[in-house]
Amino acid sequence: MMPDVTMHLARHVAAAKHTDLPDAVRKEVARALLNWVGVAIGASRHETIEIALRAIAPFAGPPQAAVLGRHDRLDIMNAAMLNGISSHVFDFDDTDLSTTVHPSAPVAPAVLALAEHRKMTGADFVLAMALGIEAECRIARAVVPPHQAIGWHPTGTCGVFGAAVATGKALGLDASRMAHAIGLAATQPVGIREMFGSMTKSFHPGRAAQSGMLSAFLAEQGYTSSEQGIEAKRGWANILSTKQDYAAITEGLGETYEIMRNSYKPYACGLVVHPVIDGCIRLRGAYGLTPSTIDRIDVDIHPIVMELTAKRAPSTGLEGKFSVYYAAAIGIVAGVAGEPQFSDAAVRDPVTVALRDKVAPRIDDTLHQDQARVRITLTDGRVLEQFVEHAVGSVSNPMTDIQLEAKFKDLVTGIVPPDRVQHLIDLCWGVDALDDAGDIARAAAA
Amino acid sequence: MMPDVTMHLARHVAAAKHTDLPDAVRKEVARALLNWVGVAIGASRHETIEIALRAIAPFAGPPQAAVLGRHDRLDIMNAAMLNGISSHVFDFDDTDLSTTVHPSAPVAPAVLALAEHRKMTGADFVLAMALGIEAECRIARAVVPPHQAIGWHPTGTCGVFGAAVATGKALGLDASRMAHAIGLAATQPVGIREMFGSMTKSFHPGRAAQSGMLSAFLAEQGYTSSEQGIEAKRGWANILSTKQDYAAITEGLGETYEIMRNSYKPYACGLVVHPVIDGCIRLRGAYGLTPSTIDRIDVDIHPIVMELTAKRAPSTGLEGKFSVYYAAAIGIVAGVAGEPQFSDAAVRDPVTVALRDKVAPRIDDTLHQDQARVRITLTDGRVLEQFVEHAVGSVSNPMTDIQLEAKFKDLVTGIVPPDRVQHLIDLCWGVDALDDAGDIARAAAA
Repeated sequence: MMPDVTMHLARHVAAAKHTDLPDAVRKEVARALLNWVGVAIGASRHETIEIALRAIAPFAGPPQAAVLGRHDRLDIMNAAMLNGISSHVFDFDDTDLSTTVHPSAPVAPAVLALAEHRKMTGADFVLAMALGIEAECRIARAVVPPHQAIGWHPTGTCGVFGAAVATGKALGLDASRMAHAIGLAATQPVGIREMFGSMTKSFHPGRAAQSGMLSAFLAEQGYTSSEQGIEAKRGWANILSTKQDYAAITEGLGETYEIMRNSYKPYACGLVVHPVIDGCIRLRGAYGLTPSTIDRIDVDIHPIVMELTAKRAPSTGLEGKFSVYYAAAIGIVAGVAGEPQFSDAAVRDPVTVALRDKVAPRIDDTLHQDQARVRITLTDGRVLEQFVEHAVGSVSNPMTDIQLEAKFKDLVTGIVPPDRVQHLIDLCWGVDALDDAGDIARAAAA
Repeated sequence: MMPDVTMHLARHVAAAKHTDLPDAVRKEVARALLNWVGVAIGASRHETIEIALRAIAPFAGPPQAAVLGRHDRLDIMNAAMLNGISSHVFDFDDTDLSTTVHPSAPVAPAVLALAEHRKMTGADFVLAMALGIEAECRIARAVVPPHQAIGWHPTGTCGVFGAAVATGKALGLDASRMAHAIGLAATQPVGIREMFGSMTKSFHPGRAAQSGMLSAFLAEQGYTSSEQGIEAKRGWANILSTKQDYAAITEGLGETYEIMRNSYKPYACGLVVHPVIDGCIRLRGAYGLTPSTIDRIDVDIHPIVMELTAKRAPSTGLEGKFSVYYAAAIGIVAGVAGEPQFSDAAVRDPVTVALRDKVAPRIDDTLHQDQARVRITLTDGRVLEQFVEHAVGSVSNPMTDIQLEAKFKDLVTGIVPPDRVQHLIDLCWGVDALDDAGDIARAAAA
């Protein structure tokens, strides 16, 4: 047993101060926040949210916190769960590429709901969110790739730590209680990969947000757990993975920040297929391609693509987000891949289906995860090739602030009143200096 | 992939009728219910419950259901969580010996809370509870012992299926929605063994009860999941165990009933040490032993005892419940092992501590789990030996109805008004014929 991993992390979190955070980290939290608020509002009227609200409303507590993009208000733990679900419904949220964790989805809903309940400055909000993301991404790095290969969904399984740490920090837990909060999180992993393609995938960060909050509130009151929840012989890391790189959790805390590797998606689907979409869109633009001119689409891909997105014949929009076949086809058919391109109707369109059936993926172990090679054989025999070195939205080719604002506006239009859109953008960019971070939630309601 | 395990179970549950249940099964549900209500009320004033209530109360919903043994009323999902926690605080609840699942703790709180919210007959209550226990115990049998050896706590990890199935049945879900409820349960395993000895162990059935209910309510409204949540390649059984005996889930459904193997504890601690306590109490009685006459206590035990209860120097009552050393000592010192013998003070008593340090366990692979051999060497050199063939409370040596009633009275005295104790016992024995099963919850409030 590796001693002291959980307590090491807990002591760091309990002692961390807002003034410790480098400017670049505070800026990246604002970028993550803007992206997250946009995707959560964008999905707020989706059937998944309507159903979850109907199921939960009869049992919810006082109207303490907003469900983003809606008039509904719930107790903070249920609001966090709902906002965690809407974060991930479009699969359009931020991603830590090295672990596939979606960092904001379990963390931001917890902190924002809490900010409506116990007054919290923007500085405290930023600190809590940065530390939550730090914890979940480091814990994920300690156990992936085996953790994911076994079948876990790290956004849920590690996200619960992020929510517990962020909430615990916002509550001011001392190191010991923080360790107990982490222990309670360790005993509540949520998310198995079989659920990909159903509404339950987005349930994972939602329940993780809520379970993490519950962990912190229980620990605050003195509920006891283990102080070695992560590293004990029968602890989280040994049970949920065959790899335990504890140094990934403990080394360089406060010196490096995981959020600096955060990436944002230009396409509303599983990130691993983005390079393929990029390549198809580029070839479409360069040669004016239409589906009828295409005989065959060969795509060379990183092995993870077939692990996560091998659905050959998706029949719903959700399934389409996890199909490399559909991804290539829609890149050619539409030339964009926003949320409308992942509707049930789009996925069932006969022209797209026919093109989808011409897509032939091949694993190439020499490729990085943000790379792909697309080779299109035309009906006239010509072969067109495009190598994508870094997909748009990857760490080496990040979305700009302006691109993030444009994505935000696309997502919230029609949900948030027009005169409030820019105000909400300004609140996110200026979160660090807000007197009351709860203002963001109030502005993000319908 | 083994096809159709989840759907097979879902179809069985959706089609099952109260009239299918043999008399002996309905009787055993009543015995399980009586035992469960007693332990939940008994622990209702414990610090663990006080803390959990303080943490949850600010966020709880309408006062729909009773916290047993108390005046507090919470929304049904939080009430089920609290009652699930109190079920297990004393570690005095029922046990399926072949899997170590505590069957009632995650299931009964869910069904009883629901019975206060949507009127439910006693017959429907009994059917839902029987089916929930059937599901959780069968799923556990499919994956233990490796599932437990890896480090999971089956009462939580399998209990969430029990709560989902029981709630789903009470809600009248069809087979497809039942499968989705099972899928949502599969993605929310709760409980790792590192938490044994802290308040978090009892959190496991509590959160399992709540997560299972949530799964059923979401599925009821049309939230989608996988219909192969248990058996898929990246499904629950493959991820959480190295053994998948799917026949244990599907074969003989409706012909055999898991609850017929249920056992009830005479001692308020981990079941695996009961044979040791039995042996010590018998030798104490036979020879009038006192601690000062004893030089050494050798105990031969099944290997699981050292897996689960190897705490050599427990310092709290909770830790004492998981110490074979303390168990042997308290059997000699007190001659009984009820809840008072697992207080912090009892565990720290110097005489008991001194005797505890004289206990020497030795693993004997030829012993069954309900067996032990106790050999006491006296200071005068004599050696006394007792072989326990079947511990009291085991399937081969079950507690009688009268013993269960006596245990119930011991537990609820001082919490439930005296004139209501017999009424509550009668409600449990007569549950099958009640017009309104919610009457049990109302009578079990303070």
